[in-house]
Amino acid sequence: MSALLLDLDGVLYVGDEPVAGAAEAVAWIRRRGIAHLFLTNTTSRPREALVDKLGRMGIAVAAEDILTPPVAAVQWLRSHAHGPVALFVPEATRAEFAGLDLLPAQAQSGAAAVVIGDLGEGWDFPTLNRAFRLLMADPRPPLVALGMTRYWRAPDGLRLDVGAFAHALSYAAGVDPVVLGKPAEPFFRVALDRLGVSAGETWMIGDDIRGDVQGAQRAGLRGALVRTGKFQPSDLNSGIRPDAVLDSIADLPRWWERVG
Amino acid sequence: MSALLLDLDGVLYVGDEPVAGAAEAVAWIRRRGIAHLFLTNTTSRPREALVDKLGRMGIAVAAEDILTPPVAAVQWLRSHAHGPVALFVPEATRAEFAGLDLLPAQAQSGAAAVVIGDLGEGWDFPTLNRAFRLLMADPRPPLVALGMTRYWRAPDGLRLDVGAFAHALSYAAGVDPVVLGKPAEPFFRVALDRLGVSAGETWMIGDDIRGDVQGAQRAGLRGALVRTGKFQPSDLNSGIRPDAVLDSIADLPRWWERVG
Repeated sequence: MSALLLDLDGVLYVGDEPVAGAAEAVAWIRRRGIAHLFLTNTTSRPREALVDKLGRMGIAVAAEDILTPPVAAVQWLRSHAHGPVALFVPEATRAEFAGLDLLPAQAQSGAAAVVIGDLGEGWDFPTLNRAFRLLMADPRPPLVALGMTRYWRAPDGLRLDVGAFAHALSYAAGVDPVVLGKPAEPFFRVALDRLGVSAGETWMIGDDIRGDVQGAQRAGLRGALVRTGKFQPSDLNSGIRPDAVLDSIADLPRWWERVG
Repeated sequence: MSALLLDLDGVLYVGDEPVAGAAEAVAWIRRRGIAHLFLTNTTSRPREALVDKLGRMGIAVAAEDILTPPVAAVQWLRSHAHGPVALFVPEATRAEFAGLDLLPAQAQSGAAAVVIGDLGEGWDFPTLNRAFRLLMADPRPPLVALGMTRYWRAPDGLRLDVGAFAHALSYAAGVDPVVLGKPAEPFFRVALDRLGVSAGETWMIGDDIRGDVQGAQRAGLRGALVRTGKFQPSDLNSGIRPDAVLDSIADLPRWWERVG
């Protein structure tokens, strides 16, 4: 085994508190020179904000070692889309796509790919319909979704997230979305490509039995569950069998010396 | 066999032209006293407009003999929803729901059912999110969809229809929609209830091998295909076996004397 993918939220920290031993474990991974990436489904802030947050908790992580859905999408698009990309993502996320050839904002055809994120209030009918028409063009461009999150909890109540709109477009246009976010296989695939490693030699470490462990296993990786974050004892009776269970990220160095 | 369900478009008329013999066949069904209903997925105009259109073609049909998704929804809601209904349908369709207890337009909870139709430009984020929040309330109200049409062809191009939004809400809220429109089973069920007949004694006559014939068969009815409207010879090699094939509705009287 030669590479590690690690979830952030629930593995390195819970809320605004670091998990005990997380800073030391991350420092050990870097010192030991193990190929690794931190995988998160967060699209609401750029990697720099995550680096800052981790830094305030004493955990040193470099921006280029974090894989978010937009970063993964850019990598996927560079190898799969040959032409201008239509972006339906919030302003803060657009910056991540700066290096790509982008379709003009009002174009009704000519997209080599249609990328959708958590556009929130930006999803009015004309906007969603424009994404739909782009998807119905000949040849059919792929629909790339920055995750499939159903909803999130805003201060004023629940709010629909990208997954709802991905489903709307997928059904109407008759295309399966390429999902760049856990637990979808293309997200893990991009991570492996980035590290230049194979699924069979890579572990995914996470606190989500489905999003992290099952997703990784379906992509051919091994999945280790930590007993922190959203972990619940009932996860171990869910029918999904983690390849390893760690009390927390603090146990990673000792565990890796055994399995790595 | 004692009852007939008939599609309108493609069976009685094609575009603005009546199918030869349609007026006579309909007059024969009425004269013969066969329990019958005309089933259409059209929600863009009320039944009176369909009656007028048929009348201009010399085909006499009564409004109460036409079952549209909104009419079926009202009947379904009367027996399944015990409390105020939240409507997300265009203005022209609202009239069909006049007799029901309706939830105030901005209420964020308290819906006994959430009904969605082809709201078109009315689907902005706050509106779709309001439907979502209503669906997430405890207890969970059913999501009632006036059909699952993917899109339609407007003069200026393709436009998303109710099915896209039903899928968005269904995925986000984790509820299966109750679909009132062919080929969904609840639509046929409402038609049977309205006539007071059982599926096993009822024929559905249509030009759509999937929407009419397969839908009816899945609901336990027999399905007859007419060779008019959208019929194509390849329909007969689609893997769906109609229980009968008629050259057109003009053949119905002679055919019924054999099978009815």
